[in-house]
Amino acid sequence: MYKGGYTGKILRVNLTDQTAKEEQLPVDTARDFIGGAGFGIKYLYDEVPAGTDPLGPDNKLIFAPGPFSGTTIPCASRMAVTGKSPLTGAVGMALTGGYFPVELKFAGYDALIIEGKAKNPTYLWIKNGEVKFRSAKKVWGMKTTDTQQIIKNELNDQNVRIACIGPAGENLCKIACIINEMRAAGRKGLGAVMGSKNLKAIAIRGKGKVPIADKEKLKAAREGMTKAMKESHVLYPNFSKKGTPMVVDATCAMGIFPTKNFSATGEYAPADKIGVDVQMGRNVGREHCYGCPVGCSQLKLAKTAPYKGILTEGPEYETFFSFGGETGVDNIDAIIAADRLADELGLDTISAGVTIGFAMELYEKGILSKEDTGGLELNFGNDQAMITLLRLMAFREGIGDLLADGTKAAAQKIGNGSEKYAVHVKGLELPAYDVRGAKAHGLNYATSYTGADHNRGYAFQEIFGIPIPYGVDRLAVGGKGKLTKWNQDVRSATCDAPTMCAFLLDMAVAEIATQNTASLMEAVTGLKLSAEEVQKVGERINNLARAFNVREGFTRADDTLPERLMMEPLKEGASKGQFISKDDLNKMLNEYYTERGWDLNTGAPTRGKLVELGLEYVAKDIHS
Amino acid sequence: MYKGGYTGKILRVNLTDQTAKEEQLPVDTARDFIGGAGFGIKYLYDEVPAGTDPLGPDNKLIFAPGPFSGTTIPCASRMAVTGKSPLTGAVGMALTGGYFPVELKFAGYDALIIEGKAKNPTYLWIKNGEVKFRSAKKVWGMKTTDTQQIIKNELNDQNVRIACIGPAGENLCKIACIINEMRAAGRKGLGAVMGSKNLKAIAIRGKGKVPIADKEKLKAAREGMTKAMKESHVLYPNFSKKGTPMVVDATCAMGIFPTKNFSATGEYAPADKIGVDVQMGRNVGREHCYGCPVGCSQLKLAKTAPYKGILTEGPEYETFFSFGGETGVDNIDAIIAADRLADELGLDTISAGVTIGFAMELYEKGILSKEDTGGLELNFGNDQAMITLLRLMAFREGIGDLLADGTKAAAQKIGNGSEKYAVHVKGLELPAYDVRGAKAHGLNYATSYTGADHNRGYAFQEIFGIPIPYGVDRLAVGGKGKLTKWNQDVRSATCDAPTMCAFLLDMAVAEIATQNTASLMEAVTGLKLSAEEVQKVGERINNLARAFNVREGFTRADDTLPERLMMEPLKEGASKGQFISKDDLNKMLNEYYTERGWDLNTGAPTRGKLVELGLEYVAKDIHS
Repeated sequence: MYKGGYTGKILRVNLTDQTAKEEQLPVDTARDFIGGAGFGIKYLYDEVPAGTDPLGPDNKLIFAPGPFSGTTIPCASRMAVTGKSPLTGAVGMALTGGYFPVELKFAGYDALIIEGKAKNPTYLWIKNGEVKFRSAKKVWGMKTTDTQQIIKNELNDQNVRIACIGPAGENLCKIACIINEMRAAGRKGLGAVMGSKNLKAIAIRGKGKVPIADKEKLKAAREGMTKAMKESHVLYPNFSKKGTPMVVDATCAMGIFPTKNFSATGEYAPADKIGVDVQMGRNVGREHCYGCPVGCSQLKLAKTAPYKGILTEGPEYETFFSFGGETGVDNIDAIIAADRLADELGLDTISAGVTIGFAMELYEKGILSKEDTGGLELNFGNDQAMITLLRLMAFREGIGDLLADGTKAAAQKIGNGSEKYAVHVKGLELPAYDVRGAKAHGLNYATSYTGADHNRGYAFQEIFGIPIPYGVDRLAVGGKGKLTKWNQDVRSATCDAPTMCAFLLDMAVAEIATQNTASLMEAVTGLKLSAEEVQKVGERINNLARAFNVREGFTRADDTLPERLMMEPLKEGASKGQFISKDDLNKMLNEYYTERGWDLNTGAPTRGKLVELGLEYVAKDIHS
Repeated sequence: MYKGGYTGKILRVNLTDQTAKEEQLPVDTARDFIGGAGFGIKYLYDEVPAGTDPLGPDNKLIFAPGPFSGTTIPCASRMAVTGKSPLTGAVGMALTGGYFPVELKFAGYDALIIEGKAKNPTYLWIKNGEVKFRSAKKVWGMKTTDTQQIIKNELNDQNVRIACIGPAGENLCKIACIINEMRAAGRKGLGAVMGSKNLKAIAIRGKGKVPIADKEKLKAAREGMTKAMKESHVLYPNFSKKGTPMVVDATCAMGIFPTKNFSATGEYAPADKIGVDVQMGRNVGREHCYGCPVGCSQLKLAKTAPYKGILTEGPEYETFFSFGGETGVDNIDAIIAADRLADELGLDTISAGVTIGFAMELYEKGILSKEDTGGLELNFGNDQAMITLLRLMAFREGIGDLLADGTKAAAQKIGNGSEKYAVHVKGLELPAYDVRGAKAHGLNYATSYTGADHNRGYAFQEIFGIPIPYGVDRLAVGGKGKLTKWNQDVRSATCDAPTMCAFLLDMAVAEIATQNTASLMEAVTGLKLSAEEVQKVGERINNLARAFNVREGFTRADDTLPERLMMEPLKEGASKGQFISKDDLNKMLNEYYTERGWDLNTGAPTRGKLVELGLEYVAKDIHS
């Protein structure tokens, strides 16, 4: 049945009673959901009922690499982590790369499902099918790099790969992430879910091999990919050398690099301070995920006091926004330091930075006083206050406690009109695109099953003019519903489920889209899917995730954007005058729902659509 | 010839012409010097002529583990690093533990001799006899933990062990250390020697086994050691649980825990703030060197803002002094943070702390102004200023540049009467014993071949009443010459040369003294030495090292103590009124030289003593 690609096994670990058992991976699940986010959402929907407390023992965390992870296919060492998000109450799914994902496969598993709650701080030690529950008392309270090193030392095995939380996850900050090596499953507060389970870390070591269904076909598919990657104008010439942060210059030029909590885009053009030329002066080398020939992750070393000597892997483009433009900080070394500190504390850099920018605006508007901040002068641009605030948030000290759960929760507590400055969708803070000047990005933020998440349906067409269907007018409203559906489905089908690096797709290596995924699936797993069927997997994932959210009570009313983006036109720059009016949003939503076959009133998948996707069993949950 | 223990090979690496060659370890060297510091000093004396610039290409660095390193003998994973010290101009020798030392043996070498100077930042990659010179451009400027991780990633081998320098070594700070894992070859500025050679790191991986001459005898010897260790009242009951910093309480009680740059011992009793009870509240676990069942190295995690969440391995007792008592800082979390930061920057914690304490006293006395410090309020007890100063020193910024070479160099530059506050011997800052109340400690500081170095002849008898010859009156002057010679020779013979952990000796596991070393030598290496011959090795090492210093121009006049300790009696506490007068020092020196067979006028080993020790060839260098 499982000719290749899959190990055929799911490991289910219950922390409450400290049991672990292996289950067969059902072939239907493999075919219908491919892996990664597909598996995560399938298990989440089936096993975490409506109303579950995201920070209670009944929430689950599903760690799932893809069928190609651990094979010789490049750029497949990725893994989806899925659970109900404490930040949004919706599906929480975040991907990470590095080495941990393939180690999970080598240890024998297509997915690891974590259930229950340990009585005391615990870490899992999974070695070739053996599972041990070990005390994490020693590493509780430690930062993420130290945690990994001390566990390796304790296990007397430097080859162990570890995913862990920092103090932020322990302290149930709803913007806490999960770190493996120096990489993050960053968003939606999944680190807090680990923390709520008293699970500090998962240590894995495996020596197994991932079986291959057809080695000849794999070789051909791999050669095709490698050739296409070599020919890409983006991957080696740009990504290897500069990585994602080079996008700062592009979005600044388009007037959509958000600054000062989305209040000032266009007035403030920091490309000369934190753009690619300055970035290159901090680059010292790069890191690769397992099996990746590109190595887009740039190592940066801070050069000036008081940050000199601080290294970080990144910051990625998003973090140049969140600790840069968003907070008005244009000191690149402070951004490097904040990136490293957030990773060490286990805070999602996007949500943390946006929350700090939000607090800065409240401070400047007088809604937060110096007394509220414990003496911190939280003006835009105060880099040292930003650094201090990160620590306060992770440890829930002083004003940090108020901000540790992100902008939505903070605004609810602060009141006093602060909600209008809280820049989030469904509780998830906005990423690094001022969508007033990139409408499909805006629609994707409004409709993504995880909240304002650039990664669930990134509209490359608006920013880079690629990929198929080729470039569109970023300021236009018409056609964005169809485009967004395509982007979301293809992203899910070719990246999130097979856990292939999104940069392959992003960078117009056309072969990596649905046909390529189909070819790889056949070569690696022996499962024959057409390109259309692959795309259907993406649609299935988006519908099942949507159904999860509907079951939790989300409706069309939640598919919205922050008030500021719908009311305040951009004041300057190349997108001057742009905003997404409620009318425009409604137009786009109508088109989007229609394309999706979703109910225009409720935003729920229709029974017909569910049946079409083989999700009949879901209909009874969301259609009474 | 090399039945066991030794690999029989020395690796000689020349950075100037990027060559590496293997040499036979001469059996005479093995027999006469055992290993470790013995080998280091032998090669240093023979190959680094008088007047060599310590930071020039002609200085050498010798990394030498011992014959037992990498065997099943516990507590032998140590290594001596030897070179001419840029801080003192005398022999520079420092030991470290952890895993790097045994890896060097596994890679095939009894010693690694580094010569010359690389043109560009370089690291060595030594794998089972293969040596590669690799660019260190990527890691230049990085802190020590990051350096190690990034090199492991670059070599795609997490099992590599790495010794490296931090920014302090790169910037030729004369108090820079060498770090492997989280351990330091700390003192005498050997990190600056690495930096002067453009050598950022040495990465080692080996799969060889250390040969054993007589497995049965080894088994018996090991069992004897293990039994004695188990019976020790100190090792497991105390060292495993508390580590070295428990000594804070003992020395505070004796009134010899130095505080505020040795100005206030007795007035200020910080045991209640940083003593063992408080320390235990920060302990989260411990680390072991390779093959060590004790694990004395306590991991401590800071608990309070702004240091919360900072982990360190240590701080050891000495560092509780240097960043604690010496600077008047009694915030344990600041001491933890400073310890970690110093390790990351590659600064010796003792010299760095004492230099900061020195600067604080100058600031309080008005010799350094706020203008001089760049606005830092360098009062005793200012923990944040201490942390800032560490960074400034490592990067040679502002006042840090002035202090980066230790107290002696700083006092020379500052002038204005500052020399009387510079607490050093031969340029090496004093460790954590106010020797006014522990006279043999004082004599050892005055006479050690490395300067004020507690580790070259620690008088346990004065502090703990152990080992053989048993406890003595710490305040007495008579008999301290003989005792110091015994301590220095036995320490060299049973710890520094075989590279056995000094805590075995210290803690009265009597078998670890000369007879035990002799038994282990026979079992492991096949070389038969009597206990007396082992002790002679210690004497030989001390004489050869002394000869090196004499050749460099050191005389009896350099065997002295800081003026303060000879002029200012202790003001309060259990050692109130005590000081070491010049007369007392001279009495002790006379006894010491007489015991040593050294010239009472010059302090040089006599020709007769050199002949007796088989060092005839040395006589021609120091006796014209």
